[in-house]
Amino acid sequence: MIKALIFDVFGTLVDWRGSIAAELEPRLGDRAAPFADAWRQRYQPAMEDVRSGRRPFTPLDTLHRENLLATMDDFDLTLSKSEIDDLNLVWHRLNGWPDTKAGLAQLSERFLLAPHSNGNVRLLIDLARHNGWHWDAILGAETTGFYKPRPESYQRAAELLMLELGEVMMVAAHNDDLAAARACGLATAFIPRPTEHGEGQTIDLLPTADWEFVAPSLTELAATL
Amino acid sequence: MIKALIFDVFGTLVDWRGSIAAELEPRLGDRAAPFADAWRQRYQPAMEDVRSGRRPFTPLDTLHRENLLATMDDFDLTLSKSEIDDLNLVWHRLNGWPDTKAGLAQLSERFLLAPHSNGNVRLLIDLARHNGWHWDAILGAETTGFYKPRPESYQRAAELLMLELGEVMMVAAHNDDLAAARACGLATAFIPRPTEHGEGQTIDLLPTADWEFVAPSLTELAATL
Repeated sequence: MIKALIFDVFGTLVDWRGSIAAELEPRLGDRAAPFADAWRQRYQPAMEDVRSGRRPFTPLDTLHRENLLATMDDFDLTLSKSEIDDLNLVWHRLNGWPDTKAGLAQLSERFLLAPHSNGNVRLLIDLARHNGWHWDAILGAETTGFYKPRPESYQRAAELLMLELGEVMMVAAHNDDLAAARACGLATAFIPRPTEHGEGQTIDLLPTADWEFVAPSLTELAATL
Repeated sequence: MIKALIFDVFGTLVDWRGSIAAELEPRLGDRAAPFADAWRQRYQPAMEDVRSGRRPFTPLDTLHRENLLATMDDFDLTLSKSEIDDLNLVWHRLNGWPDTKAGLAQLSERFLLAPHSNGNVRLLIDLARHNGWHWDAILGAETTGFYKPRPESYQRAAELLMLELGEVMMVAAHNDDLAAARACGLATAFIPRPTEHGEGQTIDLLPTADWEFVAPSLTELAATL
């Protein structure tokens, strides 16, 4: 019955915090992971301006850059324009969790696969090249014109895949993403990523609803399906 | 300087006429190829209604189905609804030219690759699965919201790839597609397909302008680049 899997990316497929902290560590030392957290903390509010209609659709790279400048202010970090441009693209070269590449390859044998991320198309292309993933298509905010968790985002993804909503399964490490997908009629799979936010993580450690599938990794999800 | 190649699909990558005629041959015999031609002849006029703004954006599968019903009338062909639905999806299972799969694999080592077709997203996904191609993203009419040769179609493709127009090369077997791409500032490569329209083909046998590259196959284009 399920014919396509669509994936959250930041946190679910890649370790954004660890990847960004590793890149900033030579420059920031102990402040590298807090910098990554602070940068990411500005992510939802920036998208909320678009979701609410206060701001026209703006690709995530642009929002990331604005948030980066604000975070640099907070951390008294000074960089040249080319250093800023380069650092902003760290989101294009995040590293996958250890199971991601093999899990996607296994799932691809039986299902259509697409990222359904708030990242822009080129960001998702670059992550796939960096990590050796193969997608059937790039879906997500820039393709659908809507940031998750707006319902139009999930509905439009199913429409582009020419599938009924119930034939599409959202795979995510975040309960709120799955709740929004389920409200639209999609199937749901929860893959907890207990160190997405570092050792002291308190959210999204456990499923908060009876998602259709819960698995500790994509390879175990593939085995279950 | 060229960082991405975007491809016309019908005619350039796949033999639509031969594939459709082969599928219809048991039912239509000698009339199978003429039926494919007649169905295809309704393609440009149907898109023109959308390009001109007389009709809102409509995915190609829908236009193909309307054109199929009209062509069936012309050929006095009667089919059940499920036979019509199935035949309309023949465009999702067209066969690539002999060089397409190997050529795309070679080109993928050095360039980002995406189809830039008037086919809808799911059609292009299915063609890739059917023929064993790997794309970085699915571009084209349904992703950009514009049918070729509208300039917005090419411009939006480059924008989604985060590239300058001159960093993107349009690859096509059709001089008019390349002319429209060049007018937008894209680079151009012509791959003649002298039997796209059958043995008596008279158009697009030769380049009609000094396209940046001309090659008899995708594998030879890969060797040249």
